[in-house]
Amino acid sequence: MSLTPAQDSSMANAIRALSMDAVQQANSGHPGAPMGMADIAEVLWTRHLRHNPSDPAWANRDRFVLSNGHGSMLIYALLHLTGYDLPIEELRNFRKLHSRTPGHPEVGITAGVETTTGPLGQGLANAVGMALSEALLAEEFNRQGHAVVDHYTYAFVGDGCLMEGISHEVCSLAGTLKLSKLIVFYDDNGISIDGRVENWFGDDTPTRFKSYGWNVLPGVDGHDSQAVDRAIAQAKDLAAQGKGPTLICCRTVIGKGAPNAAGSEKVHGAALGAAEIEATRVALNWPHAAFEIPADIYAHWDAKQQGQQQQAEWQTRFDAYAQAFPTEAAELQRRMAGDLPADFAERSVAFIEATSQKAETVASRKASQLAITALVEMLPEMLGGSADLTGSNLTDWKGAQAVRAGQPQLQFGRHINYGVREFGMAAIMNGVALHGGYLPFGGTFLTFSDYSRNALRMAALMKQRVVHVFTHDSIGLGEDGPTHQSVEHAASLRLIPNLHVWRPCDTTETAVAWVCAIQRPVSVGMTVRDGGPSALLLSRQNLPFVDRDADTIAAIQRGGYVLRDAKDAKAVIIATGSEVGLALAAQEQLAQQGVAVRVVSMPCTNVFDAQDAQWREAVLPKGLPRVAVEAGVTAGWYKYVGLDGAVVGLDTYGESAPAGDLFTYFGLTAERVAAAVEQVL
Amino acid sequence: MSLTPAQDSSMANAIRALSMDAVQQANSGHPGAPMGMADIAEVLWTRHLRHNPSDPAWANRDRFVLSNGHGSMLIYALLHLTGYDLPIEELRNFRKLHSRTPGHPEVGITAGVETTTGPLGQGLANAVGMALSEALLAEEFNRQGHAVVDHYTYAFVGDGCLMEGISHEVCSLAGTLKLSKLIVFYDDNGISIDGRVENWFGDDTPTRFKSYGWNVLPGVDGHDSQAVDRAIAQAKDLAAQGKGPTLICCRTVIGKGAPNAAGSEKVHGAALGAAEIEATRVALNWPHAAFEIPADIYAHWDAKQQGQQQQAEWQTRFDAYAQAFPTEAAELQRRMAGDLPADFAERSVAFIEATSQKAETVASRKASQLAITALVEMLPEMLGGSADLTGSNLTDWKGAQAVRAGQPQLQFGRHINYGVREFGMAAIMNGVALHGGYLPFGGTFLTFSDYSRNALRMAALMKQRVVHVFTHDSIGLGEDGPTHQSVEHAASLRLIPNLHVWRPCDTTETAVAWVCAIQRPVSVGMTVRDGGPSALLLSRQNLPFVDRDADTIAAIQRGGYVLRDAKDAKAVIIATGSEVGLALAAQEQLAQQGVAVRVVSMPCTNVFDAQDAQWREAVLPKGLPRVAVEAGVTAGWYKYVGLDGAVVGLDTYGESAPAGDLFTYFGLTAERVAAAVEQVL
Repeated sequence: MSLTPAQDSSMANAIRALSMDAVQQANSGHPGAPMGMADIAEVLWTRHLRHNPSDPAWANRDRFVLSNGHGSMLIYALLHLTGYDLPIEELRNFRKLHSRTPGHPEVGITAGVETTTGPLGQGLANAVGMALSEALLAEEFNRQGHAVVDHYTYAFVGDGCLMEGISHEVCSLAGTLKLSKLIVFYDDNGISIDGRVENWFGDDTPTRFKSYGWNVLPGVDGHDSQAVDRAIAQAKDLAAQGKGPTLICCRTVIGKGAPNAAGSEKVHGAALGAAEIEATRVALNWPHAAFEIPADIYAHWDAKQQGQQQQAEWQTRFDAYAQAFPTEAAELQRRMAGDLPADFAERSVAFIEATSQKAETVASRKASQLAITALVEMLPEMLGGSADLTGSNLTDWKGAQAVRAGQPQLQFGRHINYGVREFGMAAIMNGVALHGGYLPFGGTFLTFSDYSRNALRMAALMKQRVVHVFTHDSIGLGEDGPTHQSVEHAASLRLIPNLHVWRPCDTTETAVAWVCAIQRPVSVGMTVRDGGPSALLLSRQNLPFVDRDADTIAAIQRGGYVLRDAKDAKAVIIATGSEVGLALAAQEQLAQQGVAVRVVSMPCTNVFDAQDAQWREAVLPKGLPRVAVEAGVTAGWYKYVGLDGAVVGLDTYGESAPAGDLFTYFGLTAERVAAAVEQVL
Repeated sequence: MSLTPAQDSSMANAIRALSMDAVQQANSGHPGAPMGMADIAEVLWTRHLRHNPSDPAWANRDRFVLSNGHGSMLIYALLHLTGYDLPIEELRNFRKLHSRTPGHPEVGITAGVETTTGPLGQGLANAVGMALSEALLAEEFNRQGHAVVDHYTYAFVGDGCLMEGISHEVCSLAGTLKLSKLIVFYDDNGISIDGRVENWFGDDTPTRFKSYGWNVLPGVDGHDSQAVDRAIAQAKDLAAQGKGPTLICCRTVIGKGAPNAAGSEKVHGAALGAAEIEATRVALNWPHAAFEIPADIYAHWDAKQQGQQQQAEWQTRFDAYAQAFPTEAAELQRRMAGDLPADFAERSVAFIEATSQKAETVASRKASQLAITALVEMLPEMLGGSADLTGSNLTDWKGAQAVRAGQPQLQFGRHINYGVREFGMAAIMNGVALHGGYLPFGGTFLTFSDYSRNALRMAALMKQRVVHVFTHDSIGLGEDGPTHQSVEHAASLRLIPNLHVWRPCDTTETAVAWVCAIQRPVSVGMTVRDGGPSALLLSRQNLPFVDRDADTIAAIQRGGYVLRDAKDAKAVIIATGSEVGLALAAQEQLAQQGVAVRVVSMPCTNVFDAQDAQWREAVLPKGLPRVAVEAGVTAGWYKYVGLDGAVVGLDTYGESAPAGDLFTYFGLTAERVAAAVEQVL
């Protein structure tokens, strides 16, 4: 099926040509989605999307998310053609080491890429987070006649995204919260990798999304530019009326333009091959060489001037706002830059000191709530939430207002009831962080970090500052039993590169963990600095307060430090969280037997590992036998205790029983720790 | 709101009383769901469910799954009242150590519990798996006039289950495959832990399920026994016509019966307290003491006689079938018992030998396909599938028939296109294994084990034999980049207790890994033996074949073994999977420099750890310096190399580039391994 050689088609064909040529050159990649969605992309990017290729970090730009990230050549082609800093050489280097055109789009690598996509469904969730941020910021900062926060979030999704469970979680929430400025394009091409989806994906997707309270524009011909244009205009109209998010269902042909391969799964994830590329050139009436775009096509695509104009208009509006509301304007700028308030360093230190002075013995989840209560006063950007365990995770605080749907706007709040949607929550939090303006944190039980795990990984890969509050850790959870008891989770989360995992032992360590999580460098919009997420693993049960001097308090942020030393210590006990109390008790028992041991608290192995050799040696001197104790699997601790050390933990699942009974039953006792020390001596 | 003291209510009130009393006694647990669903449960269990309390393992029993597993007292009350081996003392010991009434229902602990639930949404997925097994077995074994496989699968789900993404994945697939004998009861009480769900869960659930192709019976009063009874009858009618699965939406009051607490989130997850319990007794007209059930109520509940009769009727049918189709009958019995064919041990050894003799250099995912192709001939119970990556995971084989929807029955096949639903696939596989009759295996990319992680954990906790085929491991995946490159996954999967993680280095190790995975003891129905799941981590790229003598081949099943020894070895290199080739090359390089080293292949650390001390010492002699090499995070390997050893790996995310470039860039080379050996010497 050849396309009409109208100008619109020529512009879309530029995407098709670049996509098939780059995939062919790399001999790897996915031409099907870019070729199928080229017409939709052309209409959206040339007629609707407000963006400035010269300033990809413009705060009020429309956000565009390619949730079907395997179609990365689509966004690379769009960025290249519209004038972003992505020269044709980069497209030639598609999927080569250190190119700006990696296999899947990566935020921070390529200007104009808003989020890293590839793991299906998560881009859509990120888009929900961005739309949520926009709606909240608009409520918080806009003033009568001053709509300084006012942009759309657009997402492209494929069948894969819509089969993934996370699409249910986040679209249900987006519909419930009526995030009207979220507009999603469904690439309904009927094909996934295994073939025709009807055999494994029989959903009536329009009906499904109506059940979520979305507006659905069904049956749009994704190759009819006018139809797509009308649909977008309609979606924006609905948004203006606050009618909720819109799904535009676009019927498309995968690999459109390739005369033999189009419409089949063969075009999904492999190069077309030289012959089919040649045939496609003929079919598309695209006689240009590979990677060659005629100047007039470039000119039509170029969005630099229009983008500068759009941003300049907004800047004028913002200046008027700043004139009328200088405090708000400065605050919005600070927040969008991801800077902490100037007084945060000082106030946070004072808060840690005050915490230490209060000397409270509470559960570390309660300690976390105390920290949150203090921090939300210092940081209006903090945006909490829980996956339907608010009263257990203690992510809320006195006076916390819940985010609720409103008509036509969202009701502002700083705490989100995410519902029983752990994965959706985590991926929405990533979108919130990527958008800028808020510092998201969210809670669930530690065991259910399994559900959200890949979103934690994505936060770490994208260097995003999000904070996960994982409570009810280890067998200390008690009666809920092994399904809910995280025995391997602390160890396994520590393995995710760039995720900081804190397991604090008392109020002071919890306060420091929170402050460290907040002080990780921020990555906002296109500027990805050296930041990342943190996870706080917190107890259900009370943990005894440990007294510390100022130097010891200051050492907590090193991730591992000497909590209680002993003269001529013959061994070191390393402990975390709820087991630090056991270590201290064992230290006392051993002292009574004349055995001097040092107790090291290691609330964050990841941060400790990043300390210089001198610090690590000072804490864990070479040659001193070591015992580690943690109520979880033991394997990770041999890195610190070696083959001659011992680890007191449990390598099986827990049981359903009161926590105290479980610690005894599994031998997580001071006596056993003391015995382990005697064994290694 | 007091209930009519009709007999039906009294029977349901027995559930309510036992639930509130047990939670009160434990001072922990969830009375809300059992009290709210008591009427539905009473109708289902007394009028419809075909089961035999005296033989919980009866192959053709209806399956009942409490997906909202926190309501565990509901099922414990039902099992106790209907006559299962669960005396009242066990209910008094609710949530106590080693009781048969743990906080969440656990298969293998309590007779009559079909699956372990608690992690929300997964019970529903297990039920889909059970219904799938039933439908497939019926197609495979039933003969004209001989419906020996013919039962329903019933599941109770709450709002939490339906918010979870996995509910979308599995209900979409169940609808597409038209699993008509699956009947699900939605406990639509409008309450989740955070309060009234309307603020975070606005779905029109009936419409949502219609979009999946389900029959939906909306607005059933969950406290009107006649209405519930009619709905179940209607669902069974629809099943008989092959109209697809049915959702019965039951409006209920959470904590029904508690005069002050009912209808509120307060009754969800905490004891009612003495005063409210007293008030509930009055409101329910239930004057009996705690844990006391009047004899006439017991008598009405008792299902032993009816169950024996139902099973006896079925046995007569089965005997007639066995007469007419002795081979099929014997095979069905073998399969439901989870026994391997008598000749499997011999044939599998021959297959491993043949594999070794062929000496093929292929990707280990291809080696896995070769194994599958051989094994499906020996084991008709093998039921494969992939989460829409069939051609990449290579989980299919020549002549493999795909499972497809049919009218009125499923089209039989032995390979399932699960769609892009990793978590759903894994939890459905658990349901298939729990049902008995098939040995499920399924594929996706290793990185996306993150999506399915908690279902792997549940398989391990439940000791179920499922096999996960995780291909495209490590940076060897190449161009798809860091989102798709599993750097931490091998290490983190190894931490899940009772999951065997195999990372084979060539065709022979892959064959052995498959056979070991199959030979793990089977846990079928109520009889949970010491079995468990296995994960095979497989390469995208070719891996060189390694020649071995018979003893060395026999040693593979030990998990770690000496692959290539050297006289007077001065060090040991430990490697897995794609890095075994590097280790062998480093060994050669070092030999040329006069340094003798041993190469240990450790395809399964979990199995190696379980070997006796003698074997472990023989493989890794004390005092011999060690270097481990694996293209992933290093932390887990210190358990084997100690503080004085070295690990060659990568502790960062990968990059998008051809695999060869990445191995060089990240220093995963024989040279670096050799250098590491020289360093530790």
